[in-house]
Amino acid sequence: MRLGASFFIVVFLSAAGTPGWSADPLLDEAQGLFRPLPGAPPTLEGNPPSPERTELGRMLFFEPRLSASQLISCNTCHNLGLGGADLQETSVGHGWQRGPRNAPTVLNAVFNKGQFWDGRAKDLREQAKGPMQAAPEMSNTPERIVQTLRGIPQYVRLFRAAFPATDDPLTFDNVAAALELFEATLLTPNSRFDEYLKGSEQALSGTEKDGLKIFLDIGCATCHSGINVGGRGYYAFGVKEKPEAAILPPEDKGRFAVTKVPSDEYSFRVPSLRNVELTSPYFHSGKVWQLGRAIQVMARSQLGASLSSDQTTAVMAFLRTLTGTQPRVEVPILPPGTDATPRPVLGSSGGT
Amino acid sequence: MRLGASFFIVVFLSAAGTPGWSADPLLDEAQGLFRPLPGAPPTLEGNPPSPERTELGRMLFFEPRLSASQLISCNTCHNLGLGGADLQETSVGHGWQRGPRNAPTVLNAVFNKGQFWDGRAKDLREQAKGPMQAAPEMSNTPERIVQTLRGIPQYVRLFRAAFPATDDPLTFDNVAAALELFEATLLTPNSRFDEYLKGSEQALSGTEKDGLKIFLDIGCATCHSGINVGGRGYYAFGVKEKPEAAILPPEDKGRFAVTKVPSDEYSFRVPSLRNVELTSPYFHSGKVWQLGRAIQVMARSQLGASLSSDQTTAVMAFLRTLTGTQPRVEVPILPPGTDATPRPVLGSSGGT
Repeated sequence: MRLGASFFIVVFLSAAGTPGWSADPLLDEAQGLFRPLPGAPPTLEGNPPSPERTELGRMLFFEPRLSASQLISCNTCHNLGLGGADLQETSVGHGWQRGPRNAPTVLNAVFNKGQFWDGRAKDLREQAKGPMQAAPEMSNTPERIVQTLRGIPQYVRLFRAAFPATDDPLTFDNVAAALELFEATLLTPNSRFDEYLKGSEQALSGTEKDGLKIFLDIGCATCHSGINVGGRGYYAFGVKEKPEAAILPPEDKGRFAVTKVPSDEYSFRVPSLRNVELTSPYFHSGKVWQLGRAIQVMARSQLGASLSSDQTTAVMAFLRTLTGTQPRVEVPILPPGTDATPRPVLGSSGGT
Repeated sequence: MRLGASFFIVVFLSAAGTPGWSADPLLDEAQGLFRPLPGAPPTLEGNPPSPERTELGRMLFFEPRLSASQLISCNTCHNLGLGGADLQETSVGHGWQRGPRNAPTVLNAVFNKGQFWDGRAKDLREQAKGPMQAAPEMSNTPERIVQTLRGIPQYVRLFRAAFPATDDPLTFDNVAAALELFEATLLTPNSRFDEYLKGSEQALSGTEKDGLKIFLDIGCATCHSGINVGGRGYYAFGVKEKPEAAILPPEDKGRFAVTKVPSDEYSFRVPSLRNVELTSPYFHSGKVWQLGRAIQVMARSQLGASLSSDQTTAVMAFLRTLTGTQPRVEVPILPPGTDATPRPVLGSSGGT
């Protein structure tokens, strides 16, 4: 089939973010609610990019010596081969301890408003500092991390090259800054839904469009909108009906722990739905393994809607169009330590 | 500097494995004992290569679903960013258990005679089956591994493409075969020592040549020879003098456990010295962290030689010339599971 010039004009105008030029009202509505994922990272406040800094971030992302045990890296729980997450209900860390919540994906996370399920970190730089220190995750201390990296001569040189304007480039803050810059590159553009948003009406099948229509009609996009089809705010889990306690454990009150505002009880950051087919199990508790069941739980608890099997299948088909091109990342070659590098600490508590 | 034609002739002849053409007797001797590392894998008996099979092996190498916990992959202990090994005295596996021995590097392992410290696997295919089943490592069973991969539709297709001639391509044997083919590509050619062996006399510095000379003069090459500067046979640890019990724990009798021949007590497969600077800590016990100390322990225990500090430094400088170009491997994107995929088992024992 050859496409005429008018097709390309429509594509161009839609891609420029001008809704209303399409003959497809579903596309018009979608273009009003969502944005295609950019292919390049956004500007990060106070963290200017450089090839040296991003490359250092790639090394640190895979660096198990950021953990006390020297076994666990960022990639352990945010595995770039597994949609930027892990396969666990809640992550397993230092001493085989289970963490309290399901690992959110690192992919496209730079476009989320706030980080962690409760938004307690305002950006990826602040987020990165959490797991390195958390006892059930990497169980390390900022002092020991800096001591470790200073004990590896190649890192001393790489931090100097990545942060040339500072007298003391190898700091815990700069570890986090390099990680943030690398993580900001972990984008999954070119999903079929993005092609659709850019005006290619054929990018979605009939069933997938049916699923999108249901998604919009029942109100999923009230929370799941924007670039990340989610990630823009905090909403209570169980607005219409509390899900079962296994899915919403009573002891985890979500954002309330951060704000102490009673209305924030059981509120969580709305997760992005991009690449959602890759990141089972679902929810902060990780208790739901099937995407179809997650859709039904959400419809009922948040919207009071009961979806038929066909409707669930259609929404699931739509959600699968949100899977984009996964980042191609080479395993970084990490530099050898020296006698000055602290040795692994395998005991259940880290520290120096 | 322009090199004349005669230089290239010398290089060519030396590279062809014809010693004796050099004016440097040290190079002559080295060429008689060692071989440059090939840039391509050897032919594997009964395991013909194909791009599909090697690519499947790459995915499986990084696949945590080969472990019961779905947390541990081959790359956990044979980290391609860490010289194909880990940073532990002895590896840490399922349930945070410590394994009995230090993880040998996977890099260039295809050129070793036998696999594991005690050579109990004849090749990498046989080796690969061990850690997947070992309780303190991946703690899985062949049945559960096959069930897991069969529950992931993309793997069913990939095994069919990789093993097209068989009715039942997704088997535990074929998991191991694919892993072997990928692992055989994990070579580190072009070390400076290889350049030297190929006739480039300037590839080593004076100190490095001094180190090579000491290495040869005291007899290290009795065991550490061939392509891998080791890996060719089994020798008792402590021929001249038993090292301290921490380094040679009395309960680990090495190859004796395989052969039951008394003369094999405390024999171990000689490790390759390629990339040795990247794979601290050393020995099957992993108790020696410093390369210099490892050299001194070996000299004393195996050869009855006491090396001065300068001699040790020179040998260490030589050994660092054995670091080759590390394999550039992209993190594979692993396919999502389905309801038919078994879920992680985190308890201390694996199985179905």
